Amino acid sequence: MMGCKKGKNVKIGTGVIIGENVVLEDNVCIDSYAIIRNNVTIKKGTYVGVNCILGEYQMDYYQGKKMEAHPLVIGENSIIRSGTIIYGDCEFGDHFETGHRATIRENTKVGSHVSIGTLADIQGYCIIGSYTRLHSNVHIGQKSEIGDFVWIFPYVVLTNDPTPPSNEMKGVKLKPFSVIATGSIILPGIVVEEDTLVAAGAIVTKNVGKNTVVAGNPAKVICDISKIKNSATGEKVYPWRDTFKRGMPWEESDYETWYKEMEKQILSE
Amino acid sequence: MMGCKKGKNVKIGTGVIIGENVVLEDNVCIDSYAIIRNNVTIKKGTYVGVNCILGEYQMDYYQGKKMEAHPLVIGENSIIRSGTIIYGDCEFGDHFETGHRATIRENTKVGSHVSIGTLADIQGYCIIGSYTRLHSNVHIGQKSEIGDFVWIFPYVVLTNDPTPPSNEMKGVKLKPFSVIATGSIILPGIVVEEDTLVAAGAIVTKNVGKNTVVAGNPAKVICDISKIKNSATGEKVYPWRDTFKRGMPWEESDYETWYKEMEKQILSE
Amino acid sequence: MMGCKKGKNVKIGTGVIIGENVVLEDNVCIDSYAIIRNNVTIKKGTYVGVNCILGEYQMDYYQGKKMEAHPLVIGENSIIRSGTIIYGDCEFGDHFETGHRATIRENTKVGSHVSIGTLADIQGYCIIGSYTRLHSNVHIGQKSEIGDFVWIFPYVVLTNDPTPPSNEMKGVKLKPFSVIATGSIILPGIVVEEDTLVAAGAIVTKNVGKNTVVAGNPAKVICDISKIKNSATGEKVYPWRDTFKRGMPWEESDYETWYKEMEKQILSE
Repeated sequence: MMGCKKGKNVKIGTGVIIGENVVLEDNVCIDSYAIIRNNVTIKKGTYVGVNCILGEYQMDYYQGKKMEAHPLVIGENSIIRSGTIIYGDCEFGDHFETGHRATIRENTKVGSHVSIGTLADIQGYCIIGSYTRLHSNVHIGQKSEIGDFVWIFPYVVLTNDPTPPSNEMKGVKLKPFSVIATGSIILPGIVVEEDTLVAAGAIVTKNVGKNTVVAGNPAKVICDISKIKNSATGEKVYPWRDTFKRGMPWEESDYETWYKEMEKQILSE
Repeated sequence: MMGCKKGKNVKIGTGVIIGENVVLEDNVCIDSYAIIRNNVTIKKGTYVGVNCILGEYQMDYYQGKKMEAHPLVIGENSIIRSGTIIYGDCEFGDHFETGHRATIRENTKVGSHVSIGTLADIQGYCIIGSYTRLHSNVHIGQKSEIGDFVWIFPYVVLTNDPTPPSNEMKGVKLKPFSVIATGSIILPGIVVEEDTLVAAGAIVTKNVGKNTVVAGNPAKVICDISKIKNSATGEKVYPWRDTFKRGMPWEESDYETWYKEMEKQILSE
Repeated sequence: MMGCKKGKNVKIGTGVIIGENVVLEDNVCIDSYAIIRNNVTIKKGTYVGVNCILGEYQMDYYQGKKMEAHPLVIGENSIIRSGTIIYGDCEFGDHFETGHRATIRENTKVGSHVSIGTLADIQGYCIIGSYTRLHSNVHIGQKSEIGDFVWIFPYVVLTNDPTPPSNEMKGVKLKPFSVIATGSIILPGIVVEEDTLVAAGAIVTKNVGKNTVVAGNPAKVICDISKIKNSATGEKVYPWRDTFKRGMPWEESDYETWYKEMEKQILSE
């Protein structure tokens, strides 16, 4: 453990291997058989599960080249569940959470309060905003741009190659408050605007305009999102920020109140 | 290994970590680097593969709270293949089998002779009957109820949130002898009745009545299941319990004979 | 490490377990906690990642039977990324590459310069040609035959049971230069001919003829592949061997030149 800078009350399990230039801040816990490679910083209060690999090797290592530093920073109070693999050249905000055996490749920048589910596969070179939730087995192609407050459900794929195989890469853009339901596939370069719902199993070949619901293969516009009601209560569901609070920054009040508070803060700065 | 109660002829591999209040019955084999956390009971003759984690931590652990006991019971003569993760508060009958790196979360109750494939992801709070087969990469949402003798093929998803994201959860119900083919998605609250076939890639938005075949996006009724013939022999295939025996309790005779035998036994009790 | 025959400059990490009758040729590197079971040959220059299991147990082991030898051969200069599981009775050519946690079961024969992505699940009893690329999370059913220069994108499934559950198995055949885009499902026994494109999300229920593009659920012929243009340049894209070189044997010249060179070599032999 040469070159490892440890804070107070750091716990390290059986068989953990730690590389050089590693920072483990106060109250970090690294569970058994995890591998922390070089140049990894784990901020205070974060838990790293069994068999995780942080700062995993990239192509330069396998090619036997002189390895460059590929720094990885994991924010405070995060939970990296067992079996997760994260490459270097990545940065995660506070309160980050993964399911089991997520894979996150190089050049991924992630905001705070984000969760990435079990077996999710982030191919790198992408941006993910804050308070965004990726469920199990989501596949995010390179060059994707995902905003704040986006929901992506299991087996969704964001693609990037318009004429496979090619050297062109056109990432998908998901704007804030968009909801991509289970098993839908978003074709390369598509933009999904705010307050949208891509229904389960949709194959999205055209941009999705604000406030719309699309479904089918190929996906077609079904209705305005305001038309969707809760089947039990008959009440409007969307925009979901008005009806859903769990884990959101407006959990203690409501979106409107929180948003006005934010505006005030920004103006006063 | 304090608090581990071991039977005869128990084999424990290199680097295995065993928690408290663990019971390993006769002829259990725990392969290398497996982690058995607290309150796990593994019944006789069961094999646990390399890198498995049994009784994996739940939210109370990560939140630093006093952990409650989350007991896990794995039945006799089971095969838990390498890399599988199973949470506590779960119970599995005898002759249970997993593929590699299956994930099974809390509050899952499973009958006997069940197999759950490689990379399958069971989200917990669900019931799975006996002699049911989940193939690779199946995703079972919370609140699902899956009967006996159900077949679920790769990349099937049982969803549960009718208006994502919400706090409503409406589980899918799959009745006995239903067959859900590759890549189909079953929408929240849907009931799939007995002797049905959901074709590959179907997006199922309505209940599926007895003896029907559905296909498409959205799924539509295609025909009565009795219409489907074996392409080589021209013979009827369904209900499959009349034409398929491998691994079933009627393997040595036929379904009819076995069923009558069962009835007699039940009446005589 | 009895019965392990090691070449020069072999590196073995912490906690690696090596079985009997294992050959590690020159410059092989086995990273920490990998398990190499019996009868595995790893050719020179190959890297095996953390937590890999090579020569993983088959049913005869779990059944407590006398194990037969199940040899596994991995070609030269290969990269087996962390968490990959490969069974015995398999053979891989040189320059083989896997993503993380790929699973490859028994009786899989693979050519040279093949890559199999993260979480891909090869069910065994199948053939994969040279220079073929399987992306993340591809599922290849038993009895599949995949030619040289085939591209398979994430979440594609090759099925094999025409009337599930049955004992019939009809593998899919993918001919050279076919391209199977994200999330498509190919039904049992289907033949996809050369120079074809199966579009994202297609459910393929009929054979796909040479030079065609199919899409939809169920898939229908959309157009001749020559009709597809690069959206930016307006140039023809397919057959892709004329427009794409990265990692291909014609990387230094072009397909035509390479092909003529090959013909000459074959004739002169």
